[in-house]
Amino acid sequence: MCVACNHTIHRAKHHFGWDNSFAPALVAKSGETIHFECQDSSGGQLGADATVASIATLDFGKINPVTGPVYVEGARPGDALKVTLRKFIPSGHGWTANIPGFGLLADQFKDPALHVWTYDAASMAPALYGPKGRVPLKPFAGTIGVAPAETGHHSVVPPRRVGGNLDIRDLTAGVTLYLPVEVEGALFSIGDTHAAQGDGEVCGTAIESRMDVEATVEVVKGANLAAPRFTTTGPVTRHLDAEGYEVTTGIGPDLMTGAREAVARMVDLLSAEHGLNPVDAYMLCSVCGDLRISEIVDMPNWVVSFYFPRIVFT
Amino acid sequence: MCVACNHTIHRAKHHFGWDNSFAPALVAKSGETIHFECQDSSGGQLGADATVASIATLDFGKINPVTGPVYVEGARPGDALKVTLRKFIPSGHGWTANIPGFGLLADQFKDPALHVWTYDAASMAPALYGPKGRVPLKPFAGTIGVAPAETGHHSVVPPRRVGGNLDIRDLTAGVTLYLPVEVEGALFSIGDTHAAQGDGEVCGTAIESRMDVEATVEVVKGANLAAPRFTTTGPVTRHLDAEGYEVTTGIGPDLMTGAREAVARMVDLLSAEHGLNPVDAYMLCSVCGDLRISEIVDMPNWVVSFYFPRIVFT
Repeated sequence: MCVACNHTIHRAKHHFGWDNSFAPALVAKSGETIHFECQDSSGGQLGADATVASIATLDFGKINPVTGPVYVEGARPGDALKVTLRKFIPSGHGWTANIPGFGLLADQFKDPALHVWTYDAASMAPALYGPKGRVPLKPFAGTIGVAPAETGHHSVVPPRRVGGNLDIRDLTAGVTLYLPVEVEGALFSIGDTHAAQGDGEVCGTAIESRMDVEATVEVVKGANLAAPRFTTTGPVTRHLDAEGYEVTTGIGPDLMTGAREAVARMVDLLSAEHGLNPVDAYMLCSVCGDLRISEIVDMPNWVVSFYFPRIVFT
Repeated sequence: MCVACNHTIHRAKHHFGWDNSFAPALVAKSGETIHFECQDSSGGQLGADATVASIATLDFGKINPVTGPVYVEGARPGDALKVTLRKFIPSGHGWTANIPGFGLLADQFKDPALHVWTYDAASMAPALYGPKGRVPLKPFAGTIGVAPAETGHHSVVPPRRVGGNLDIRDLTAGVTLYLPVEVEGALFSIGDTHAAQGDGEVCGTAIESRMDVEATVEVVKGANLAAPRFTTTGPVTRHLDAEGYEVTTGIGPDLMTGAREAVARMVDLLSAEHGLNPVDAYMLCSVCGDLRISEIVDMPNWVVSFYFPRIVFT
């Protein structure tokens, strides 16, 4: 129970995609704290008993439900909505999938794959993956945003100027996120909670996991933000970095090609060194490895690096 | 003095660009450790008394000298050269420049700019930038590589399959780097030492700083690497992350545009919050801020984030 919350929005109050004509699930005052019951990104379709066959039956019309929207009094176009993420209350269950047609290496991994996770929601100890893998956990919200100015229905899949499916793994407890407001009341929603993800979310899914979130919403007048930004007041990767990293690179004139090459090389390396099936290595990269742009100025070749945390196998 | 070194290569033994016909500066056995005297990337053209006017007189034919090459006995095409970076011995002086036509935001920053740094080479305490900025230092080699198989002379500027101007800020002491060998003896060279740099090196230069490097070279037979990879056995950003980060984003279907937008937004934020000239904010981003790919799978929009460490202003 959230002792500091002014409101609770239950799981049933969710929507699919973004539309500024959606009726608010809640009207809140600036400065109020809300307890959001969120669903996982499958909307419960991939539960603890899911198998790889479940992927073929997924209803993509019910992907990525977000809880809300919250109409925040006083929010007007040109303001920012300041969202302080206070607490994540994880469920202990999750899944990671390779969904055909989706993911950075979709051309190389054409068959569905699924890993169902259980983790200790109290201790948040690293989650087991195969006989030797231990993935450090850090819950966050994959989808967090406000309604766009454009009328009509907009897919939840691509992130936007107003946020949405950002999948930024550092949007964790303690972070303050600023979102550009484009409609009256902002119409804030949140969901797609993840227990762990690396920078890139390379296979297309994280540890997708139902959890509740407590967050405070405040209006910042006249901020005129062009895109989301956030502040994290402490380190972001200390749960991962104690044993350092294995790093592969992709070098060339196209960042996307470089990213694909770096990840494919890490899949090869992990498969060779730890006896993983390539698709398992790929999904593991998605939940804990990081895509970084090492240099973007040494014309005409850029370096994209993929950092895999050694702690997973130590 | 390096008590464990088998050889020293003096600063005068350097070359510009890559060419597999360059005569070796040294013939070494696999497993030997070498003390490399490296120059800064200007080859001494931008010293402690340099001014912004010095940039206009730079001789680009003398940019980025690397010390070497080292012919490593037994190295053959298809092998890897394993380079263990043992120690960096910094000089205490450095520079960062905005060089017209060069850098991620070259279209926005058309005028030359120069910051000359001094730092304590013994304590390696953060280096001062303006009245309030303090940049944590971590020395590394920007250019590290072996000769390519293709005959002829090749520019030092772009990094390649065989390494070179990688500008990966984590190629620091303690790291093991594997480079694909393409010619007999590998012909290894190193230089372009930096006292600090963020992921991306966004303005085109780091804290460019002359220093010496101690490294061990070993042949790994039949590794058949497609590109450089490396192992770091400890955390890579703990010198930077204690106070967390300010983060801006660029969202859209092109990673390069996203990177440019994220950095431009950070330049705006730092200028507004700390009263910096935009070009100073840009150069500061280059020496300590990080470009990350937060997600690369939520079609058709990717999120590139720029992380600026708050410790610089706390």
